[in-house]
Amino acid sequence: MTVRRLLWRQLDPRAYEHEGLSPTNKVVVFTVIVASLGAIVETEPEIERQWPELFDYIEAVFTILFGIEYCARVWAAGENPRFSGILGRCRYALTPAALLDLFSFLPGLLVPAFPNLFLLRVFRLIRILRLARLGRLSLAVHHLLYAVRERREELFLSLMLAIIVLVFSATVMYLVEGDNDPKAFGSIPRSLWWSVCTLTTVGYGDIYPHTVLGKICSGITAFAGIGLIAMPTGILAAAFSDAFQRTRTTAEENKRQS
Amino acid sequence: MTVRRLLWRQLDPRAYEHEGLSPTNKVVVFTVIVASLGAIVETEPEIERQWPELFDYIEAVFTILFGIEYCARVWAAGENPRFSGILGRCRYALTPAALLDLFSFLPGLLVPAFPNLFLLRVFRLIRILRLARLGRLSLAVHHLLYAVRERREELFLSLMLAIIVLVFSATVMYLVEGDNDPKAFGSIPRSLWWSVCTLTTVGYGDIYPHTVLGKICSGITAFAGIGLIAMPTGILAAAFSDAFQRTRTTAEENKRQS
Amino acid sequence: MTVRRLLWRQLDPRAYEHEGLSPTNKVVVFTVIVASLGAIVETEPEIERQWPELFDYIEAVFTILFGIEYCARVWAAGENPRFSGILGRCRYALTPAALLDLFSFLPGLLVPAFPNLFLLRVFRLIRILRLARLGRLSLAVHHLLYAVRERREELFLSLMLAIIVLVFSATVMYLVEGDNDPKAFGSIPRSLWWSVCTLTTVGYGDIYPHTVLGKICSGITAFAGIGLIAMPTGILAAAFSDAFQRTRTTAEENKRQS
Amino acid sequence: MTVRRLLWRQLDPRAYEHEGLSPTNKVVVFTVIVASLGAIVETEPEIERQWPELFDYIEAVFTILFGIEYCARVWAAGENPRFSGILGRCRYALTPAALLDLFSFLPGLLVPAFPNLFLLRVFRLIRILRLARLGRLSLAVHHLLYAVRERREELFLSLMLAIIVLVFSATVMYLVEGDNDPKAFGSIPRSLWWSVCTLTTVGYGDIYPHTVLGKICSGITAFAGIGLIAMPTGILAAAFSDAFQRTRTTAEENKRQS
Repeated sequence: MTVRRLLWRQLDPRAYEHEGLSPTNKVVVFTVIVASLGAIVETEPEIERQWPELFDYIEAVFTILFGIEYCARVWAAGENPRFSGILGRCRYALTPAALLDLFSFLPGLLVPAFPNLFLLRVFRLIRILRLARLGRLSLAVHHLLYAVRERREELFLSLMLAIIVLVFSATVMYLVEGDNDPKAFGSIPRSLWWSVCTLTTVGYGDIYPHTVLGKICSGITAFAGIGLIAMPTGILAAAFSDAFQRTRTTAEENKRQS
Repeated sequence: MTVRRLLWRQLDPRAYEHEGLSPTNKVVVFTVIVASLGAIVETEPEIERQWPELFDYIEAVFTILFGIEYCARVWAAGENPRFSGILGRCRYALTPAALLDLFSFLPGLLVPAFPNLFLLRVFRLIRILRLARLGRLSLAVHHLLYAVRERREELFLSLMLAIIVLVFSATVMYLVEGDNDPKAFGSIPRSLWWSVCTLTTVGYGDIYPHTVLGKICSGITAFAGIGLIAMPTGILAAAFSDAFQRTRTTAEENKRQS
Repeated sequence: MTVRRLLWRQLDPRAYEHEGLSPTNKVVVFTVIVASLGAIVETEPEIERQWPELFDYIEAVFTILFGIEYCARVWAAGENPRFSGILGRCRYALTPAALLDLFSFLPGLLVPAFPNLFLLRVFRLIRILRLARLGRLSLAVHHLLYAVRERREELFLSLMLAIIVLVFSATVMYLVEGDNDPKAFGSIPRSLWWSVCTLTTVGYGDIYPHTVLGKICSGITAFAGIGLIAMPTGILAAAFSDAFQRTRTTAEENKRQS
Repeated sequence: MTVRRLLWRQLDPRAYEHEGLSPTNKVVVFTVIVASLGAIVETEPEIERQWPELFDYIEAVFTILFGIEYCARVWAAGENPRFSGILGRCRYALTPAALLDLFSFLPGLLVPAFPNLFLLRVFRLIRILRLARLGRLSLAVHHLLYAVRERREELFLSLMLAIIVLVFSATVMYLVEGDNDPKAFGSIPRSLWWSVCTLTTVGYGDIYPHTVLGKICSGITAFAGIGLIAMPTGILAAAFSDAFQRTRTTAEENKRQS
């Protein structure tokens, strides 16, 4: 077996002969998690003040590591007949997965050149997007997305119902409390913040009705609306569970047949 | 095919020969969403101050559009044998759907005549009710309502249980905390506001028990009551999901038979 | 048919020949709801100040009504062979349902004799307990209680798990935040109030961690614990739904057989 | 039957010939609960101030009781062929259950020797861990753990999704509100506290967005994220319920066969 074939089996999760992730991909997953944690912690000004240079060095190391990984992936992709040759490699480089890999080290190369504050912040966001690569490696996420797509009608309708409930309750509170508390309920867009906070049961406590009529209306709409707001949540959770059940059943059937 | 027949097939979702919505109804749905968003944003005083005339023009356009749509619907309804002739048209105009259509442009005609502040606010509420027309166009909502009606006994009983739990916990807190915090717990109706906020887990934080005994009682009733309050929610979500499942199964059976 | 037999069929929900409630019992249910609402509203000091005598008259009317109803129920109970004769009536008077009926008018007779403030408050609580009579009239509640009893092991274990999670998270917060905020986290019983508020997701906002370590610990325990706290809720809702499903299936089978 | 055999049947829940717990184990469970309650209440400074010596005596009694119980368990373990002889006893003493028993009375012996404040606090934590022994006695917990292990993939993935949603929403709020409210949203770790509070719907109200853009972003992420955060919860509850269903079915089958 050639080195490229070996590398390809290690890097492409679908080409790996055993179940689960290959050792190389396990290292990649671990590195991605550490790099993401680094990008999260780095944003804390107090930590950056104490060790101002530390994160620059860490970032440089990760940029080099992900750069090497990217090159290896592009080179090894040639094993796949769809991506062989230079033209095939270009096609590979344009797949969403490869673009995600590219964006996980490109900011590290560009930031020193453009030391702009706003760009820095956006690049940090991109660095955290590396986490999305964890999802790519897992075949299970694909199954989930498929299941969600199957129930998209249900999810869409329940979301629409939820939005109508939000708007309706905001309108009621605007009519009832609008005059007493114009800062919080003086318009429907303002009341919507109350609707979202109440009907998702978050309830920060920054705005709440003060009049008796407002309390009665808010109590009734909250009571009636929470169920409708929770519906998309419940449907999503059930779809996720079903998708797993289905995958497991299929896997067991495949085992029996082989 | 006559023009009226063509129009009827475009406007009546049940007369359209293909699945989904007809192009005309898609435009109507889009217009309804935009008009509702306009009516929501319009209530914000800061936006109205900046562009005082803008929303009057927008409203005029929507009034004309919905007026034309209403006339077209009434005229095309004649294709349906139940609504043919002038008497049939009158019967059509009294159906809930047609009344909803009427109310979506009538306020725009009447507001300039009665520039009263309270009426204006109520008319704005009616304009947002246009959103309800989105539901009418969707056959799925009919299925949902049917399913909810089937479980009405269950929903009613769980709602009654929820109300009894609310009243009971409010009574306990009134007995325990009534003397210490008369403003928040000085009567059962006042304690009910706490009950609603706590048992729906919203928890604004405007009122909460301060004494040790009050905290113990509120902890126990919250712990015991949240389950009962969440029951109608769970039943509603399950009924909604079942209704969809049923519709999908029926649709698949129809496909097999044809 | 004698008058007593007619009355018995009207009053005992199991003796009524048709489905649902008899007209007399519908009136009783309605009266109970109105009387309970009256007892709730009566506690509001502002309302009592405005109409100080009103609620005394209302209470007198309800006391007489429920007194007549109680006598009628005791007299009619003789139709049931288990409760015939004076001894049988005494046995009937000691059933929980009859005692509940007794307590719904007895306070109204005793309050004028002992115008004590504390007794008044307790009697008011008893008056609201009249609501429990609504449950007695409904056969569905019996089915529910049966179903809950069937899953009592599951409910008990999940409740125990929930309590252990509460205690454990309170202990963690006591160790971590105890020194920084002794008023809120200075002992495990104090921390328990935070645990209840957080893990039921009520979150009043009167106490929350201030230190970084406290926030990390509270975030992790909240994240891990909410699932376990919600478990009894989910099990209860499922048991309630199953009980209904079972009742409906049994009713359908009975219909087929007859 | 020897005394040791009798004792073993009383102490080992799997050796007891009848269903449920043996009388001795019921006493042990009761003692564990009382001792744990004592350890919880003891931490309250006001109670300790009032009865400073009381809890020392109580603790001494429980230390002796649990010490005797531990010795009895080690002695009786010899009935089990796996743990007979002195070497077998040592092996028994190293099982997690026996270590848990050891730790439930050891702190009581050591605390008087090292009257250090920090150690005291940690030892109190260990005393509350006695509650974990309640779980050991129950066979149901074993079934639950087995079921959770079966769905570990599902739980792990949904937890990962939840963490990604938390990080993503924190990043969005950091970008949007970071400049306006640096204390609450000035870094991603700080924003994470908001994410946890909002997406678990606790909503203490200590931090929330103040700008319009921040409110819109937080409303959308809250709305979209709550479903994903609630997913592990739902899966855990379903797994727990399934495990019980399975146990009940197995028990019924065993009854039929015997």
